[in-house]
Amino acid sequence: MKQYNNITIIGIGLLGGSMALALRKITGAKIFGLDFNAKHQERAMELGIIDAVANDETIKETDLIVVAVPVNKIAEVSAQFLLQIKNDAFIFDVGSIKGSICKTLKNHPKREQFIAVHPIAGTEFSGPDAAFDTLFDGKKNMICDAELSRKDLLEKAIELFNAMNMKTDFMKSKDHDKHIAYVSHLSHISSFMLGKTVMEIEKDEKNIFNMAGSGFASTVRLAKSSPDTWAPIFIENKQFILKSLDEYIKNLKEFADLIANDNFDELYKTMKKTNHIQEILK
Amino acid sequence: MKQYNNITIIGIGLLGGSMALALRKITGAKIFGLDFNAKHQERAMELGIIDAVANDETIKETDLIVVAVPVNKIAEVSAQFLLQIKNDAFIFDVGSIKGSICKTLKNHPKREQFIAVHPIAGTEFSGPDAAFDTLFDGKKNMICDAELSRKDLLEKAIELFNAMNMKTDFMKSKDHDKHIAYVSHLSHISSFMLGKTVMEIEKDEKNIFNMAGSGFASTVRLAKSSPDTWAPIFIENKQFILKSLDEYIKNLKEFADLIANDNFDELYKTMKKTNHIQEILK
Repeated sequence: MKQYNNITIIGIGLLGGSMALALRKITGAKIFGLDFNAKHQERAMELGIIDAVANDETIKETDLIVVAVPVNKIAEVSAQFLLQIKNDAFIFDVGSIKGSICKTLKNHPKREQFIAVHPIAGTEFSGPDAAFDTLFDGKKNMICDAELSRKDLLEKAIELFNAMNMKTDFMKSKDHDKHIAYVSHLSHISSFMLGKTVMEIEKDEKNIFNMAGSGFASTVRLAKSSPDTWAPIFIENKQFILKSLDEYIKNLKEFADLIANDNFDELYKTMKKTNHIQEILK
Repeated sequence: MKQYNNITIIGIGLLGGSMALALRKITGAKIFGLDFNAKHQERAMELGIIDAVANDETIKETDLIVVAVPVNKIAEVSAQFLLQIKNDAFIFDVGSIKGSICKTLKNHPKREQFIAVHPIAGTEFSGPDAAFDTLFDGKKNMICDAELSRKDLLEKAIELFNAMNMKTDFMKSKDHDKHIAYVSHLSHISSFMLGKTVMEIEKDEKNIFNMAGSGFASTVRLAKSSPDTWAPIFIENKQFILKSLDEYIKNLKEFADLIANDNFDELYKTMKKTNHIQEILK
């Protein structure tokens, strides 16, 4: 894709770094980068994830900016760069929430050069060392409130996502935030609290982890995720997350009651019904 | 290992079936089997997991019986077969709880021919089709209340586990049940209830699973586990499971409060501290 000479990544961690690597491969563009964490920026240079550090001059020339900073900074960072970019350049973010970002940017004079994107991709690792060029390969991708983005720029973005082999879909930012609270944010909290609970008991019961198998490892995996990324997500998506957590806690209590009352039949039924997740996730 | 001519598996599902395959490979013995589920027994024959169906005559000749039935049946099944086997044969079980089994068998006249074993191995799948011969390779293995088993038989069992490349350790059955409640049983419940919560919201929010990524898949994986195996485990290990669930729910509520109060600093600290699980699980 020869139309890209200069691409800029703001926030060069797992997602930003992986975008840098994937976009270089697809477009052949020179990749500029910025990270508020000086060590990450330096490391991204060392690893060759970015070719040079971005500055006011390179931003004026950039064809695309990917904003991959923590979700509570996305709107602010995007608003600032929207004022600096060329008329045919565009910005997309990769944040795990979309509602508050779209709301803040709603009346921005350059709103139509912004595309609200959530690639459903990630690992439990973070920082530039965690980045790899196939992170997005085969993954789902959500574009929110697409009608607010300029059509030619939206088409260019989708062309890039297709080239990365992503499956792009469209939805309203508010619906996005509700759905993602259940299928992503709640999983992270359940996993973090599982890790916390087991580490607390381990203080008194040494070597408890000797008995941990692959089931525990899988369920607690997300508890390794970065608080820099996730604390802002939990607060920004508070409304839907608190609702999902309420329902989760209610279900846990009901299950505990079934166990306490030796209610084998209901326990069995509940689990059998939940096994249906196997067909859904196929 | 030529000392094994005839090995019997009672319950030919994921664990029993995998034991059958691993033991045949190591010992070259003929494998007899029984399953209370006629379809499983038939399927185990079709798949060549067992060579023949066990009966009273083959039990008299067997060198080893592996009891791999649901945990609420293990003591009863073992007690019955202990009365039928040769004096130099032994029985071990593979159940995920040990306390109530050891308690029930405590005064059995043949107790010393029984070994209480928990191989920390499994997948979310079940039945004979899920069995494979390397399930136990490299896995941890717990023998409980080993002092109650006859020393020569215990040594024979350990020789088998070593040949399967398992790492065997010893502990009291009560300690086992407490620890495993946290690092295995609680994970299963958190996963089942996560699956339930998301499936409930999905009734109103179609296509929510379109947005599920690898994080959700990993955290909800154990919700595919068999209720036939797990409902009995939850009830048999009720005491420790209810305690771990109480602590888990308390942690979830505290975390929800931090989110509700926009307490970024404490959220961050809690998550950062929990990240330590990364070092522990290495």
